[in-house]
Amino acid sequence: MQFFKVKTVEETFSLIEENIPAIEQTEVRELAEALHYILAEPVIAKENVPSFDRSTVDGYAVRAKDTYGSSESMPGFLTLVGEVKMGEVPTVSVSNGKAVYIPTGGMLPRGSDSVIMIEHCEDVDGLLNTYKQNAPAENVIRTGEDIKEGEILVNKGTKLRPQELGALASLGITHVSVFRKLKVGYLSSGDEIVPYQTETLSAGQIRDINYLTIAGLANEWNVDVVYGGIVKDDFDEFKQKARELYDQVDGLILSGGSSVGAKDYTTDVIQSLGDPGVFVHGISIKPGKPTILALANGKPVIGLPGHPASAMIIFQLFGQRILRKLKGEKTEHKPERIFARMTKNIPSSPGRSDYIRVHLFEKDSEWWAEPIIGKSGLITTLVKSDGIVEITSEKEGVLQGEYVPVFVSR
Amino acid sequence: MQFFKVKTVEETFSLIEENIPAIEQTEVRELAEALHYILAEPVIAKENVPSFDRSTVDGYAVRAKDTYGSSESMPGFLTLVGEVKMGEVPTVSVSNGKAVYIPTGGMLPRGSDSVIMIEHCEDVDGLLNTYKQNAPAENVIRTGEDIKEGEILVNKGTKLRPQELGALASLGITHVSVFRKLKVGYLSSGDEIVPYQTETLSAGQIRDINYLTIAGLANEWNVDVVYGGIVKDDFDEFKQKARELYDQVDGLILSGGSSVGAKDYTTDVIQSLGDPGVFVHGISIKPGKPTILALANGKPVIGLPGHPASAMIIFQLFGQRILRKLKGEKTEHKPERIFARMTKNIPSSPGRSDYIRVHLFEKDSEWWAEPIIGKSGLITTLVKSDGIVEITSEKEGVLQGEYVPVFVSR
Repeated sequence: MQFFKVKTVEETFSLIEENIPAIEQTEVRELAEALHYILAEPVIAKENVPSFDRSTVDGYAVRAKDTYGSSESMPGFLTLVGEVKMGEVPTVSVSNGKAVYIPTGGMLPRGSDSVIMIEHCEDVDGLLNTYKQNAPAENVIRTGEDIKEGEILVNKGTKLRPQELGALASLGITHVSVFRKLKVGYLSSGDEIVPYQTETLSAGQIRDINYLTIAGLANEWNVDVVYGGIVKDDFDEFKQKARELYDQVDGLILSGGSSVGAKDYTTDVIQSLGDPGVFVHGISIKPGKPTILALANGKPVIGLPGHPASAMIIFQLFGQRILRKLKGEKTEHKPERIFARMTKNIPSSPGRSDYIRVHLFEKDSEWWAEPIIGKSGLITTLVKSDGIVEITSEKEGVLQGEYVPVFVSR
Repeated sequence: MQFFKVKTVEETFSLIEENIPAIEQTEVRELAEALHYILAEPVIAKENVPSFDRSTVDGYAVRAKDTYGSSESMPGFLTLVGEVKMGEVPTVSVSNGKAVYIPTGGMLPRGSDSVIMIEHCEDVDGLLNTYKQNAPAENVIRTGEDIKEGEILVNKGTKLRPQELGALASLGITHVSVFRKLKVGYLSSGDEIVPYQTETLSAGQIRDINYLTIAGLANEWNVDVVYGGIVKDDFDEFKQKARELYDQVDGLILSGGSSVGAKDYTTDVIQSLGDPGVFVHGISIKPGKPTILALANGKPVIGLPGHPASAMIIFQLFGQRILRKLKGEKTEHKPERIFARMTKNIPSSPGRSDYIRVHLFEKDSEWWAEPIIGKSGLITTLVKSDGIVEITSEKEGVLQGEYVPVFVSR
């Protein structure tokens, strides 16, 4: 077996960045079905938004200079010559000393350059008293002010949030080219692991709960998961099942195998799947040291530790990055982590990154992080936690009151 | 028409809390299909987790007192009498001066009380040299230490995140009773509004982009949306379409109607749907003042402002709370907002809550919020923004460097 040096968290991030490719397959989706997909090509505006000068208030379209000097005590006077209807091109125009009623969203009539709000004037039998002076363009969104024709509106690699969908729709775009949805396989290994549906456990057995936590996280990231079942600690069976699953998916997640023998199996099975193979074997992190990351013929393979809390932390920290790269995502939506102040001193070993589950509470307009004490096998510590504090490898711990980054569980 | 006093944001939150009921219908779902559903009854542990004393490391099961005094310079000596296999009840037991090999996750053999890590001993032809003394229970998760039989594991009203699914699975629970998925209706109104699929706009027309942003947000909250189309500014048509949609859904979202006439229609249409009717008509907030909230025969109705950015902010701020109450959700997953420091002074009117779109960046282990300047009609300001800063109604603005709460867009 090849020997690997344990990597730091930062080295692991760089290796993921270098090694994981984006999938090549794209598809065209209707906008309403494209939420959280990743844009596969930039979208360029083919028209101005808005496509006409539009009023942002209910009021009167005027020439700004006709209102100069108007005030509560010295109103100006304009002649009302008509009204603009929503969704129609105005048939009236505004010349010197004239005004036209316009609703919010209405198109500015020819000759006008601004809109005076209804609250600032009074219609006295067709004579408009203005109590305030207007600036040019006041209460108007100009043609192209929101989006200009020819501009890149949304970049390739952007995750389509509701607001991106809205922006694209405002341009009359109804279909987008996106990277297709990822499908990853999940396979558990270990003689002691039984399906989570097992009603009564025999002594020594453990239910495969990682499937639910890991698939749940993947689903939150818009990734489908194919369940590959549980394999015993048998190299040939493990290799065959892993290969079968690997062939159907874009990436593979292997959970468990915490016994010494199983750990060796896992590495050998991963190496058998394709080149270049394992690029991270062991990370200086607590919990989660025995993590394995590999690339086999363009498909990532993630070997997670068996402990439920460790597996979740490792998958959130590294699995999410790997899947993002694989799905072609380039934007980092912020903030994925917040800063909070630690309620107590936490020691840590330099050279190793520590991840501590915390409960968050608000005090004096700041978040505070209270560590939850519990061994890494305890799923209840995760249920009780609001997030995970990172103590980076160069630190010897954190002091009470110190600011720490927290990855938040939602 | 009834007259309404404009409400503050805080009053609106209280009114939502008082007025919106949870839906009554529940359903039983398989755990793997229950992500983000809301638990309709508490789950009580029917067994201990783990169900046996389990080792957390690879090592040797011993009696702690047999290792007392062991050190690197003065090792202790124990006789190896066998090994524990994963997933099996040990057939060997540990008596005075004896040790048994045990893998991570293995079941402690009778007679042992702790596990000494493999790194702290050496097997010399069946004689185990121990270089460290063990404490009782060291490297062991005790029966029931994670979850105790009879304990409430997850409360009613909890949103099922991946970790809750894992915790439930660890108890052998395969099905849960949850509130069924919500279905809300979306209806746009306004003579100027055309379907977003409209290829070429006539002068004065605007594409219905709020459908995409609002449905996108609802989908992120695990809520289905039924599209009801666009109605013209015609009271009878509006009322009929709203009623038809209302009858099919758990709640109704009305968008637009920004002209004076349409605003009146909207209120009257909402009042026609059922009692008690409108409970908020106007909120002292910028943007989004013309918001209407109502309850009609147990179904909430939300009247959103027509401007895309305003509609999103209002829906995130109030719509999300309403839908959470409606879906029976009681937990508040934290933090929904973070604290950041403002890069510049922002004035604000006391008595009104202001919401400012910001770009977030990290500096010196803190988040800073840079305001994005733009009129509320501009969708691009939302695309560029990472979140929304809240300036509460009692404030006259915020100063540069001041901590402000930020609602984050993901």
